[in-house]
Amino acid sequence: MTNKIFFTPGPSELYPTVAKHIQSALEDKIGSISHRSQQFKDIYAHAEAELRTLLQLPDNYEVLFLSSANEIWERAIQNTVEHESFHLVNGSFSKRFYQVSGELGRKATKYEAPFTQGFDAASIHVPATAELVALVQNETSSGASMPVAEINKFREKVSPDTLLFVDAVSSLPIPAFDFNQVDSVYFSVQKCFGLPAGLGVWLLNNRCVAKAEALQAKGVSLGSYHSIPAMLSKAKANQTVETPNVLNLYLLGKVVEDMLQKGIETIREEAATKAQLIYEYIKVSKNFSAAVQEQAHRSVTTIVANTILPASEVNKLLAPYNMAVGSGYGDYKEKQIRIASFPAHSVEQVQALVEKLQELVG
Amino acid sequence: MTNKIFFTPGPSELYPTVAKHIQSALEDKIGSISHRSQQFKDIYAHAEAELRTLLQLPDNYEVLFLSSANEIWERAIQNTVEHESFHLVNGSFSKRFYQVSGELGRKATKYEAPFTQGFDAASIHVPATAELVALVQNETSSGASMPVAEINKFREKVSPDTLLFVDAVSSLPIPAFDFNQVDSVYFSVQKCFGLPAGLGVWLLNNRCVAKAEALQAKGVSLGSYHSIPAMLSKAKANQTVETPNVLNLYLLGKVVEDMLQKGIETIREEAATKAQLIYEYIKVSKNFSAAVQEQAHRSVTTIVANTILPASEVNKLLAPYNMAVGSGYGDYKEKQIRIASFPAHSVEQVQALVEKLQELVG
Repeated sequence: MTNKIFFTPGPSELYPTVAKHIQSALEDKIGSISHRSQQFKDIYAHAEAELRTLLQLPDNYEVLFLSSANEIWERAIQNTVEHESFHLVNGSFSKRFYQVSGELGRKATKYEAPFTQGFDAASIHVPATAELVALVQNETSSGASMPVAEINKFREKVSPDTLLFVDAVSSLPIPAFDFNQVDSVYFSVQKCFGLPAGLGVWLLNNRCVAKAEALQAKGVSLGSYHSIPAMLSKAKANQTVETPNVLNLYLLGKVVEDMLQKGIETIREEAATKAQLIYEYIKVSKNFSAAVQEQAHRSVTTIVANTILPASEVNKLLAPYNMAVGSGYGDYKEKQIRIASFPAHSVEQVQALVEKLQELVG
Repeated sequence: MTNKIFFTPGPSELYPTVAKHIQSALEDKIGSISHRSQQFKDIYAHAEAELRTLLQLPDNYEVLFLSSANEIWERAIQNTVEHESFHLVNGSFSKRFYQVSGELGRKATKYEAPFTQGFDAASIHVPATAELVALVQNETSSGASMPVAEINKFREKVSPDTLLFVDAVSSLPIPAFDFNQVDSVYFSVQKCFGLPAGLGVWLLNNRCVAKAEALQAKGVSLGSYHSIPAMLSKAKANQTVETPNVLNLYLLGKVVEDMLQKGIETIREEAATKAQLIYEYIKVSKNFSAAVQEQAHRSVTTIVANTILPASEVNKLLAPYNMAVGSGYGDYKEKQIRIASFPAHSVEQVQALVEKLQELVG
């Protein structure tokens, strides 16, 4: 039994209603139902419909459920890139997407910014031959974030056929995307949706689908069971190709329903309030300093701070108070902390964390 | 709230201890822990160690956790087949594995037996050029099963470098495999392990690993994040590449621990008892007849019967008594029923099902 509050950047705190929904799932034996049954199709349709409402997703977008964001990177390259992709890279996760393209035999090029720095669209030249451009709205490893307005500048910088992909793994549903300005956005449920891990959600428009179909018509292998056409043919019947993580699909529908009840505007306002609380504390702290210099590029969901005291020591101090923050990523493991501020974290919890950090490390 | 007993062939009844373990997982906040934490590594190591004990897995085998058996088919072809695979096909799932190979651009050849028929090793010629031979211990769609003794005859029928893969998706841990006679066996947790869906388990020996490494050295793309070398490098540190289905990994370790407590011999004896109860009833039934003619090829875990009364009508009759069987697969949806007899189903439950069927449909 633990009462610890996880401010770790995913997996993180479960959304407050998850335990209750798991209870209902057990009572209704959701773990036993067939993934070809009407009951499952209803669960699938509900999750998709609630998500569409929450995100205000245009009708030309499809919603596909995969096993992780890692898988989405692979399927994106396999299904929409024949020769070349172009990647904005400023941290470990954007770098992985870039590497995946190379591992799948494509030419991957990149524009790289230093860790913890963001991007200005104006200074980036996108090769005309890039079929996919990987933008990163929120780099989970460094806390660098790209404003939606900046993302929206890319359409006119790229060839008409180029597809714009946006990594919002650890930020959706907080950024209010203009989905018409991009072609695909993806996220993982264990971040801002407060669910157990094991589900990646891929939003993609008809242009992505058409590209996959064109590649398939040319004889390019799109993979097997999780090619876009294979997934879509099942998705249209509210099903998946494989037996999926049914429990998580059920929970996703329930949690998004709860989020809609609360209201996306309230959730976004709270996100801003919580981020402000944390950044204001970091600014005056004797131990921490904001890792991302430019204010406009600071994430509101995964807040990264340089720390003088090693990250593990910070967590040792917090432990008796049942709180934990994330350590830095990779080489920054001890030199930075990462604080998740997700919809599952209440303003009060964030306030309590900030006060405790102030008291313990100044 | 439902008290229905699911005799459906997966997802199916949850193992009786699953609800209790989910409760513990919630109390210990397993859904919130980092997949890079020591706590996660312990959960991973525990699941793997318990599985190794239950299955008596030789030391030259690796255990990898993927998202589904569908994914294992794809990764198997990508990682161990450069040119050609050979498939025994006698139902929808063995056919899918065959198709996956073709979709990934390999030459896939097959030996096909009619639906509901099994295989005799003696009559099958394996092409000398086949790099992977797909055997099917239990074809979930038709209820045709291959005795372990028959599987063990293949090693001497194939080239020294050929890898023998065994589909035990809906039968492990019931068959007592001689793992030294094959190279890989795989299963899904929502069948005989009685867990919520969302995890495929891939057992593979050093010969499979060596093949993947050799292909990689030749410049063949093994995919990206889920290539065998990528997965193994993390597995050796009790981790996965992506954020995995942590909850299911936790539950798998707990359920296998419970199975070990009960004893694999008891579980296997009960499986035989339950199968006998069902087949004996089918033999005398006026409505049902065994779909698989040859007794030695009849599955003990997914029992398929031809039905005069449409399968949906059978389930309508069973519904008031809180029982459900699986419908037939694909074209056989109404013409056959499939009864799962997994470790989660007690002898008493199977007895009650058989008695109720006898009473309702004769």
